Amino acid sequence: MKLWLFGLYGIVGSTAVAGERAIRKGLADTTGLVSELPDFERLKDYAPLEFEFGGHDIRSLDKNLYQILEEHWELNQHFDYRILLRLREDLEKIKAKKGTAVGCGEGVLEELKPLQTLEDEGLTLREIAERVEADLAEFADGETVAVNVASTEPRPEFDPEVHGTLEGFERALRENRTDKITASMIYAYAALKNGIPFANFTPSVGSEIPALKELALKVGVPHAGNDGKTGETLVKTTLAPMFAYRNLEVLGWMGYNILGDLDGKVLAHEQNKRSKIVSKDKVIGKILGYYPYTITEINYFPSLQDNKTAFDFVHFRGFLGTKMKFYFVWDAVDAIVAAPLVLDIARFLLLAKKKGQKGVVKELAFFFKSPMETEEYNTHRQFEMLKDWFNRLVAA
Amino acid sequence: MKLWLFGLYGIVGSTAVAGERAIRKGLADTTGLVSELPDFERLKDYAPLEFEFGGHDIRSLDKNLYQILEEHWELNQHFDYRILLRLREDLEKIKAKKGTAVGCGEGVLEELKPLQTLEDEGLTLREIAERVEADLAEFADGETVAVNVASTEPRPEFDPEVHGTLEGFERALRENRTDKITASMIYAYAALKNGIPFANFTPSVGSEIPALKELALKVGVPHAGNDGKTGETLVKTTLAPMFAYRNLEVLGWMGYNILGDLDGKVLAHEQNKRSKIVSKDKVIGKILGYYPYTITEINYFPSLQDNKTAFDFVHFRGFLGTKMKFYFVWDAVDAIVAAPLVLDIARFLLLAKKKGQKGVVKELAFFFKSPMETEEYNTHRQFEMLKDWFNRLVAA
Amino acid sequence: MKLWLFGLYGIVGSTAVAGERAIRKGLADTTGLVSELPDFERLKDYAPLEFEFGGHDIRSLDKNLYQILEEHWELNQHFDYRILLRLREDLEKIKAKKGTAVGCGEGVLEELKPLQTLEDEGLTLREIAERVEADLAEFADGETVAVNVASTEPRPEFDPEVHGTLEGFERALRENRTDKITASMIYAYAALKNGIPFANFTPSVGSEIPALKELALKVGVPHAGNDGKTGETLVKTTLAPMFAYRNLEVLGWMGYNILGDLDGKVLAHEQNKRSKIVSKDKVIGKILGYYPYTITEINYFPSLQDNKTAFDFVHFRGFLGTKMKFYFVWDAVDAIVAAPLVLDIARFLLLAKKKGQKGVVKELAFFFKSPMETEEYNTHRQFEMLKDWFNRLVAA
Amino acid sequence: MKLWLFGLYGIVGSTAVAGERAIRKGLADTTGLVSELPDFERLKDYAPLEFEFGGHDIRSLDKNLYQILEEHWELNQHFDYRILLRLREDLEKIKAKKGTAVGCGEGVLEELKPLQTLEDEGLTLREIAERVEADLAEFADGETVAVNVASTEPRPEFDPEVHGTLEGFERALRENRTDKITASMIYAYAALKNGIPFANFTPSVGSEIPALKELALKVGVPHAGNDGKTGETLVKTTLAPMFAYRNLEVLGWMGYNILGDLDGKVLAHEQNKRSKIVSKDKVIGKILGYYPYTITEINYFPSLQDNKTAFDFVHFRGFLGTKMKFYFVWDAVDAIVAAPLVLDIARFLLLAKKKGQKGVVKELAFFFKSPMETEEYNTHRQFEMLKDWFNRLVAA
Repeated sequence: MKLWLFGLYGIVGSTAVAGERAIRKGLADTTGLVSELPDFERLKDYAPLEFEFGGHDIRSLDKNLYQILEEHWELNQHFDYRILLRLREDLEKIKAKKGTAVGCGEGVLEELKPLQTLEDEGLTLREIAERVEADLAEFADGETVAVNVASTEPRPEFDPEVHGTLEGFERALRENRTDKITASMIYAYAALKNGIPFANFTPSVGSEIPALKELALKVGVPHAGNDGKTGETLVKTTLAPMFAYRNLEVLGWMGYNILGDLDGKVLAHEQNKRSKIVSKDKVIGKILGYYPYTITEINYFPSLQDNKTAFDFVHFRGFLGTKMKFYFVWDAVDAIVAAPLVLDIARFLLLAKKKGQKGVVKELAFFFKSPMETEEYNTHRQFEMLKDWFNRLVAA
Repeated sequence: MKLWLFGLYGIVGSTAVAGERAIRKGLADTTGLVSELPDFERLKDYAPLEFEFGGHDIRSLDKNLYQILEEHWELNQHFDYRILLRLREDLEKIKAKKGTAVGCGEGVLEELKPLQTLEDEGLTLREIAERVEADLAEFADGETVAVNVASTEPRPEFDPEVHGTLEGFERALRENRTDKITASMIYAYAALKNGIPFANFTPSVGSEIPALKELALKVGVPHAGNDGKTGETLVKTTLAPMFAYRNLEVLGWMGYNILGDLDGKVLAHEQNKRSKIVSKDKVIGKILGYYPYTITEINYFPSLQDNKTAFDFVHFRGFLGTKMKFYFVWDAVDAIVAAPLVLDIARFLLLAKKKGQKGVVKELAFFFKSPMETEEYNTHRQFEMLKDWFNRLVAA
Repeated sequence: MKLWLFGLYGIVGSTAVAGERAIRKGLADTTGLVSELPDFERLKDYAPLEFEFGGHDIRSLDKNLYQILEEHWELNQHFDYRILLRLREDLEKIKAKKGTAVGCGEGVLEELKPLQTLEDEGLTLREIAERVEADLAEFADGETVAVNVASTEPRPEFDPEVHGTLEGFERALRENRTDKITASMIYAYAALKNGIPFANFTPSVGSEIPALKELALKVGVPHAGNDGKTGETLVKTTLAPMFAYRNLEVLGWMGYNILGDLDGKVLAHEQNKRSKIVSKDKVIGKILGYYPYTITEINYFPSLQDNKTAFDFVHFRGFLGTKMKFYFVWDAVDAIVAAPLVLDIARFLLLAKKKGQKGVVKELAFFFKSPMETEEYNTHRQFEMLKDWFNRLVAA
Repeated sequence: MKLWLFGLYGIVGSTAVAGERAIRKGLADTTGLVSELPDFERLKDYAPLEFEFGGHDIRSLDKNLYQILEEHWELNQHFDYRILLRLREDLEKIKAKKGTAVGCGEGVLEELKPLQTLEDEGLTLREIAERVEADLAEFADGETVAVNVASTEPRPEFDPEVHGTLEGFERALRENRTDKITASMIYAYAALKNGIPFANFTPSVGSEIPALKELALKVGVPHAGNDGKTGETLVKTTLAPMFAYRNLEVLGWMGYNILGDLDGKVLAHEQNKRSKIVSKDKVIGKILGYYPYTITEINYFPSLQDNKTAFDFVHFRGFLGTKMKFYFVWDAVDAIVAAPLVLDIARFLLLAKKKGQKGVVKELAFFFKSPMETEEYNTHRQFEMLKDWFNRLVAA
């Protein structure tokens, strides 16, 4: 089995690779992997935890994945250094191919420079798509999945001409419509065209446009997204139902997130931040059935690096109108929470493919902040949905 | 419909009465009442939110419920004073009958004194039980429920001779076995004997012994318990599943509760506290499937009065062995969270009775820290269980 | 003794009046009043806690202070309602005069409307100043102080022509330079011209410009400011020295403030917020001697009303380079913390005046976020400075 | 200059050594060292940051300090592993001598076993004291200090016969009064007898008894203690003055500490914990001038290791009687906060000695939870006291 990561050199992608290798070498256990819960035991018959890795990235292409992880480690010390040392040989063999930053916004252009992109070689959108397709074709076998873990892009306004149909999308590629098409769409397009299941772990558009949903159905490939549900939003969507079940009125919910590292730098750019905040902010209302006053902020705090910290405050009203308070602090390392989910999603998508599923797999909502084609944001119901789907599939 | 409260003059009982009255007079809305959620809309056909109230207590029996609520309000200011003023006439009509403090432990004896109890009149256990039965018989009609909201008792060791069978229990009443029988058992016994559904909202023993379960089945009455799930435990049992679903290992969970008022004083007595801590502490392990290191403490903090505040800290381990942290603070008024549940439980028990249910209604687990006859502690699954049960019942 | 409050009808001003009255009537004790500490015992010989009150405001001028406080209470329930009832007669006698909102920015114009201002009567700046002077002259005796507790204004850029000299300022008044002169400057000017000590409890400009400092010296009147140090900044300036003393490097300090009520609404306007944030943000660097990364945000959160809540996070580095964390939550009612300081400052300024002090009394820095003419922001040193100054003065 | 550590192999002692070495090798900066603040610049003329190290311990005596630090690191990862690797050669040269656990209580006996102590060789108290003295004599030069960083002992009741005079103490040594004399007293005695300044960084008795104070004066040696002020108490004594300055009444102060590692294990023993809690608990009252309700708890939480975490809650009352709340979380690595203070204290004691000071140096109160011979617990005043003392001394 193979896993292609768009954004392989980011901290989430590289940590996913390190984790898989560490587990296979017996240097770490399977903590953090949903797909390794007893509930999903039979998954290993369809998609064991064994991947070969490849991916695209847009910088540091002269380095290998070990060097990249050393850099991430230097800033984050996000796992035991001795594990990294013992994975060196394995990781040195993995190198990213050159990808694209089309439509990635000022945040990416400024903070990741110097960039090395296909568009800088003078390629048009169509040519970029072809190169990405060719890279994937070369790598893939029948058991390959692709996941987007690249930096958050701004979301272009929906344009039915371009995004509404596969034909329109392909026309726009030919017409080099860089105002409408972003890297995540190209990646999704290239994967699906190759018959490779695709997941979008970011708030970028990815495969959510009708054009690409059409492609997935046409080719008969499953896909999923958007935006991995990792930290504060995971807690929010676990806790908010409690207020609903108990008929306690949420008067306001403040969610204040701070983070450093590249992700923080990119999100410090208003355009890029917008995608993320929209994705995080709506969940409360979806779960409660009404929209209380909410504050959702993300701010750059350099010394934290990838140790994303969230401060939430819930003001609520109970019996006889009395106001009460709830606070939480989430103090976690984002890549450590996110990386195993990338492996989980890949495995579940492979199962879906083997079982003949095509189009959006909405039952993977459990993994996403903005799940496609479902209104279920309650973490608990999402987990039940995932288990039911899994049990149906393996029983089939 | 009628509701008898054992411990009517406590802050939970008296606030439940005030709330029901305030809602009926249009002075407050139904926030906090689970039974008023749209999911349970048809409940009003069986058990509308309209009660007459009575109850037992063991002190201040010369006062009426308005005077009692003024005292609670003076210390807690737990709802808008102007509401209380407007309920005066109604509440002045309600007075508690003399109850019992048998087996209630040093905490109750010390902190609630001067007590006015049936045993102080020289009555034996059998005579006490008869008096309580007679009080209930006089009050009740065919639509009456009884709920125990009295102070937490120590839990006597299980004795099969006394607690194992109804016959043994009644023998022990006759033999005046005050070492084995506590007030909450007598209350449960008297209610059930009268054919009145009973719920135990406290960590005391109540109706959980085989003897009383036997009685409930024999008489054909539903009952439920134990220990209302109101504050920190509600949050715990909502959040802990998240760690399980995501395969994150909980290394330790600290729950530190502080509270003032009478409840705090009673729980400052080791014997009485024990019942409560056992009830709170086990939920984590039940939900996770393993028992991490836990600290569950309750301490008296006088200035807080009924504003029970909890500090929880969760230390957990994720992918690649990395340790992370989660903190929460629950800053609520216990009576405000608890009181509406008393009304909810009463209504659901009436529905159960009307639908012919008898014995433990384990589907009411959602309301309890230590639900009887179920191992389901996950708040979300409990809520689903409640809805399913309700829908089955009203469809029947 | 008399106290004139610019912004009398705001929650801080009205609560200061209520508090003074409640203490004099024996309904409340002196908790919260610095001037009532044993350290300042002899203050009562110069400036006892006994004021007559008057003030300006810019809305609701048809109402009296009791009606105003009822409105504040309805939203905030910030002290025992029964105290308010017992102050009714006293408070009904107090009514604000019409003031000015010149230069108060969009925040004030939008959120406080409908306004009733002198400028709306068609008065020029010079005429406004004269009216304010006349109001003060009518009210004042030799023991009168004036304090500005009106909403935060934007700070106009310093213009040496206008703000640099008294002559320039008076010329600008005559020339009706509404682009350069704000209400707080007019208030300060009018007070000082009347020989009345003035304090600016807000982040507005007040008497800090050279023109007005010149006036104070010329007239021989003491004054002080700016911006009452009440909540998060008080804690910050108490705690930050600890990191300095211990040679712990602060890597970043996040201060996130949320509040509702009128103050929150005004500060939701960028222009008005700016003044406040600048005042709050600089203190860390002043105390540490270097400028770590800081976030200082203020956001509107309506359900909190005046219950300003702050979340602070300090990331710091210790021995051997290890990073550590500190969090705090400040959950207080702003008016309750602020109001007594208004009385304190008034009393200390009266002492200063009686002892012949003129110009900026920098030793009152303890009360301000942005103290004038001192670089001392450490709360502890400020308190020592206040005590030393007091002791020198009363010994003189 | 030389520093002898009683408890050299503990995490505080060993980290102090590692830190000093790392700084001298340029692998770490001087962050965390009070003695390196610009205020104390001239200290380097008397006591530069350059020590040779030795010490006693009671276990693992076959290992060297590098091996010991590897063990601490494995559990705590309390600083960058690469620093440790580069100190290997240096640290391997340092080995502890066998010390004593006399009177160290069940906590130490249970949790540190297998112990290797002088008393296990069959030595009497007098012989133990002689051996310790001899070890010190062999190590010391004229610029040597000794600091106790061993585990917390229970505090024996004061006995004037034994503790009241030097003569009585020496008699008790001869009479082998193991019920009255503890290891920390023997260590203090041995150091002082050798003319070596002594500091007690623990809550144990150390040199605080009149007998040893007499010895210090007789020999002409300075000493200091007790109990390094490192975490929650440091914050408490920094913050509590704020409530005093502002005349805010503290209604209650809860301090809840959790920690793992050996220290946590020892303190889980009631007898040993008592010493610590008494030391922590009294500071609030000493600073406020009245004794509010306080909770001070320390609990074992194994997964945290030396990452001592404290949760504090302050309930306070302000103007007009309104109650408000303050919370903090201190999330630090105890050894990282404590270790530099050990070096600081050693340097300041050397200065004191060179300047001819003898007896208790109460001006070092800044470093201690329970400073000897002063009632000053306010961190800020302690820091001023330290600076004044230093300036007087270096000017002398």
